[in-house]
Amino acid sequence: MAQERLSMVVFSGTLDKLMPVGILASGAVAMGLEVNIFLTFWGLLAFRKGAAQSLPISKEYEAMAEQMKQIMAEKKVPSFLDNLRTAKELGNVKVYACGMTMDLFGLKLEDLEDVVDGVVGVGEFITTAKEGKMTLFI
Amino acid sequence: MAQERLSMVVFSGTLDKLMPVGILASGAVAMGLEVNIFLTFWGLLAFRKGAAQSLPISKEYEAMAEQMKQIMAEKKVPSFLDNLRTAKELGNVKVYACGMTMDLFGLKLEDLEDVVDGVVGVGEFITTAKEGKMTLFI
Amino acid sequence: MAQERLSMVVFSGTLDKLMPVGILASGAVAMGLEVNIFLTFWGLLAFRKGAAQSLPISKEYEAMAEQMKQIMAEKKVPSFLDNLRTAKELGNVKVYACGMTMDLFGLKLEDLEDVVDGVVGVGEFITTAKEGKMTLFI
Repeated sequence: MAQERLSMVVFSGTLDKLMPVGILASGAVAMGLEVNIFLTFWGLLAFRKGAAQSLPISKEYEAMAEQMKQIMAEKKVPSFLDNLRTAKELGNVKVYACGMTMDLFGLKLEDLEDVVDGVVGVGEFITTAKEGKMTLFI
Repeated sequence: MAQERLSMVVFSGTLDKLMPVGILASGAVAMGLEVNIFLTFWGLLAFRKGAAQSLPISKEYEAMAEQMKQIMAEKKVPSFLDNLRTAKELGNVKVYACGMTMDLFGLKLEDLEDVVDGVVGVGEFITTAKEGKMTLFI
Repeated sequence: MAQERLSMVVFSGTLDKLMPVGILASGAVAMGLEVNIFLTFWGLLAFRKGAAQSLPISKEYEAMAEQMKQIMAEKKVPSFLDNLRTAKELGNVKVYACGMTMDLFGLKLEDLEDVVDGVVGVGEFITTAKEGKMTLFI
C-alpha cells in the first residue's frame, strides 16, 4: 500500500525555489504525512553551512529580488531552513544529501547545515520515494 | 484507492513553463482525469489579470523568445489561459491560488484571471493531491 | 495496481537539468523500475542530433559553468546521453518525443539522437505515466 509520504528531489538552489520546499514540508507534516527530501546538485550546494545567506534568485525575477526580500522581512516569512527545522520538530522529515553530488564537489556531512540527516544514493532515495504518495522534482 | 487525478503545483511564471500547464491539463482531461492546480509564487503572479501579456521567458532562451512567439502565432498555438479555459469546459479542472502567496503580495481573488476558482492553503492542496495518480511541480 | 515505473516529463534543456534525467533513469533501472521519458519543448530540442555539445547551463550558475565542466571531466562523469544509453542497456527505458513539439519546430525522428524511441502525444504519455509509481516534471 502506498505510504503517507511526500518525497522531493531538490535540484534547484535559488532562494525562491527553496521556499516551497520548506512550505510543502511543513504543510505535509501538518496533514500527517512523512517527508523525504533528497538534495542534489545546486540544491545540495545551497545547504552548505552559511550558503543560505547568499543564494541567487531565479534570473527572470532578479529585478524583483529586493522587493521580495523586503516583503519576506515585513511579513516575517521564515527562511527555508527555519521552515524545515520546524517541520522536523513537528513530524517525520528526513533530509538526505545525494552521495554522488557530495563526491563531485568534495563535500562532507559536516560541511552541511544541521537539518541534513545523512548521505544516500539515488537508488536508495528512489526505493523510498516510490512507495509514497507524491514525489516532486524541484 | 488512488483517484484519476493529475495535480500540479505551478510555481514558475515564465511563458514557456506555463505552456505545459495548459497542455498537460488538456491532455489529462482528454484521457478522463480530473485536474487540480495550485498556483503559487511566480506562478500565481502570472495569473493576475492581464499579466499573461507580458510574462518573461526562461532566461536561457531569451534569444529565442521572438522566434518562439512567431512560431506560436503561425501555428495558432492557444495561450496557456485559453488551454485552461478549454480544459475546464471539457472536464473537471480546478485552479486554486495559494493562500500564503495571496497574503504575501496583498492579492484578492478579483485580481486574478477568471480561470482561478478560489484560494486554498497548502495543506488542503496536499490532502487532495496525495490521493491522485500524479503530482507535478512546475 | 500501480506499476514499478518512473516517468519523467523533460521540459528543461539545460545541461545541468539534464544530468539528473540520466542519473534518475540509471538509478531507477538499477532498482528494478521501468522508465518512461517524455521529451518536450526545450527538453526535446536538447535531443536534436549534436545539440548536447552546446547546451546552455542554468543562467543563475553561468559563472560556475567552466568549473562544473572541469569537475565533470576530471571525475569522468558520463554525459546525460551516455547515462541514458547505459540505462537502456540495463533495463526497460523508453524515451519519447512530444508530438506537438515535433510539429511546432518541424522536427522528424531522424533529427533526434538515437536514444529517442519514437513520438507520442501528451495523452498517451499521461495514460502510461498515471499507472506508475512516480512522475516528475524536470
